[in-house]
Amino acid sequence: MATERPRIGADKLTDFAIRALRKVGVPEEDAQITARMLVATDLRGVDSHGVAHLAPYYVRGIKEGLINVKPKMKVFSQAPSTATMDGDQGLGFVIGYRAMMEAMHQAEKTGAGFIAVRNSTHFGAGAVYAMMALERDMIGIAMTNTGAGVVAPGSTKPAVGTNPLAVAVPAGEKPPFVLDMAISIVTDGKLEMAQREGASIPEGWAIDKEGKPITDPTKRLPSEGGLLPLGGTPTFGSYKGFGLGVLVDILCGVLSGSCAGILKTPEMRSNNHFFGALRIDSFLPVENFKKSMDEMITAFEALPTLPGVKKIYVAGGHGAEIIKDRKANGIPLNSKVIEELQELAKELDIEYDL
Amino acid sequence: MATERPRIGADKLTDFAIRALRKVGVPEEDAQITARMLVATDLRGVDSHGVAHLAPYYVRGIKEGLINVKPKMKVFSQAPSTATMDGDQGLGFVIGYRAMMEAMHQAEKTGAGFIAVRNSTHFGAGAVYAMMALERDMIGIAMTNTGAGVVAPGSTKPAVGTNPLAVAVPAGEKPPFVLDMAISIVTDGKLEMAQREGASIPEGWAIDKEGKPITDPTKRLPSEGGLLPLGGTPTFGSYKGFGLGVLVDILCGVLSGSCAGILKTPEMRSNNHFFGALRIDSFLPVENFKKSMDEMITAFEALPTLPGVKKIYVAGGHGAEIIKDRKANGIPLNSKVIEELQELAKELDIEYDL
Repeated sequence: MATERPRIGADKLTDFAIRALRKVGVPEEDAQITARMLVATDLRGVDSHGVAHLAPYYVRGIKEGLINVKPKMKVFSQAPSTATMDGDQGLGFVIGYRAMMEAMHQAEKTGAGFIAVRNSTHFGAGAVYAMMALERDMIGIAMTNTGAGVVAPGSTKPAVGTNPLAVAVPAGEKPPFVLDMAISIVTDGKLEMAQREGASIPEGWAIDKEGKPITDPTKRLPSEGGLLPLGGTPTFGSYKGFGLGVLVDILCGVLSGSCAGILKTPEMRSNNHFFGALRIDSFLPVENFKKSMDEMITAFEALPTLPGVKKIYVAGGHGAEIIKDRKANGIPLNSKVIEELQELAKELDIEYDL
Repeated sequence: MATERPRIGADKLTDFAIRALRKVGVPEEDAQITARMLVATDLRGVDSHGVAHLAPYYVRGIKEGLINVKPKMKVFSQAPSTATMDGDQGLGFVIGYRAMMEAMHQAEKTGAGFIAVRNSTHFGAGAVYAMMALERDMIGIAMTNTGAGVVAPGSTKPAVGTNPLAVAVPAGEKPPFVLDMAISIVTDGKLEMAQREGASIPEGWAIDKEGKPITDPTKRLPSEGGLLPLGGTPTFGSYKGFGLGVLVDILCGVLSGSCAGILKTPEMRSNNHFFGALRIDSFLPVENFKKSMDEMITAFEALPTLPGVKKIYVAGGHGAEIIKDRKANGIPLNSKVIEELQELAKELDIEYDL
């Protein structure tokens, strides 16, 4: 299926995104950062958070004044290994990139760096920030708190966001470990996909306002019932998924000086993030670490598989295969995204060359 | 039920544990640390990891030479905010306490501190270390990697340990947030409990070597099949629970210079840990942080509840109620533990005064 979609080279797509962002007033360097992060997301196969968002989220957000293209970001740094940053409602990609750079800068000096960010906007997929740490032989961490959409165990109203958290860890010959997970069983994206396809969803992903499982995705209401946290029910550990969601809320929302998702009002359009970096050679020699990572991953890959399972993947392994394919053969775009990008080119009066 | 068990004062229990540990050669300060951590675990209601382990785990471990009572712990610190520690097979409580103190010492200076520990032994429950950060207005983190007992999604053999991770965050008027969770749906303890009671377990906690769900807890074999990671199956997000398990393995096993649980040989009796501390006032004023924590927790507690649910608990809320009760009324011990402690007193020739 994916091979039937037209493939666009990453460089061409990046260039197109830069030109579009430039046209709506994004400064050159910021346009380059944003375009690179968007395309890096597509390269990893996270099609939902890449250039598909360029027109509806970012260009539109800028045009409607929800995103500030000339933000005055401020860093409040009280200590060598920690800081708080105010993003002044700028592009989430630029703020996230700069915050992650600052975390790595601190880790370069002290071994560890942690930055809590308030007043940012949608930053795409956390993995691309966490993965910035890989080439510096650091462990990278990125998370964001979103508006409440996931119920607490025992309740019927959204309490925490899907609050994704991402961690990237370099390996040697093996692909890096890259975990990027929402704290709910699935995100709304999965329900929307089922809705588009007229399909039902498995019992146990979401509940209605009476706490009953929803199998018809159109029955999901934004403020009643909600997605279930990882674990699903108390018997299967839902307090853990919920607890992780609260933790992300604390690190992103509370520690940055903003607030938890449950306290967000509709007027608060800002997002909050948390970034971290740990420098591996401040713990042990990088060669030893990478060798040990490879040994672990090799042991996982050698595990016996259930019938029908071809391979045991460690987080990041499947993504690495997609990156390799898409770097070589281009990024497949679906027809709706292509249409949107063509319309965007017309609207902004830039050349469409994809 | 709990009220029918005899209640023992925390101080008396601590004193008894100190005398027992002293008698088997543990230096005074180390005996005090270990006893305090054991009893702190009981105070929180984690009866499985408190003084119930004194005789069978710690005194026996020392007598059998598995635990070194005079360890030469070494800190390899290459940076102001990170370090690696070798525990020289000492008591896990003492090593964990000292590592957490070091992490907080670093955070005092730089805002953040992270210590990876190898060659330790069983350290009890992670929460008591993470909670050490609370009175210093820090966020505390503690985790440990255990021998493999949890299957990878798509496999039928244990791949990662139950690898518990704990995070503690101070609040203001409200109890602190304390999340302490294994990355499996349940730990073996729950299966052992069902086995003792002759009960079955819910379908979805564990599988046999063919990947079929086990409902008879006696069917669980240590090296075939295993516990399921949080999420249970791929449809319900099991890669997330497994991914968190691998992450704990990386931070505790790989980063400390030991290895992941899957590569542990039966001869390797050591445990590995990872500790962290973030100083809140290096991000924002502590008063603001605590006020915001209280507002968040208050909003969670005000959520509508399902019929039969009395209260929405945030992680740590229930534990705080137990601590309050047990500090006032003593720690309930079951008859088996009391018998063991009486026997221990006889064996070590110390006074039994509980």
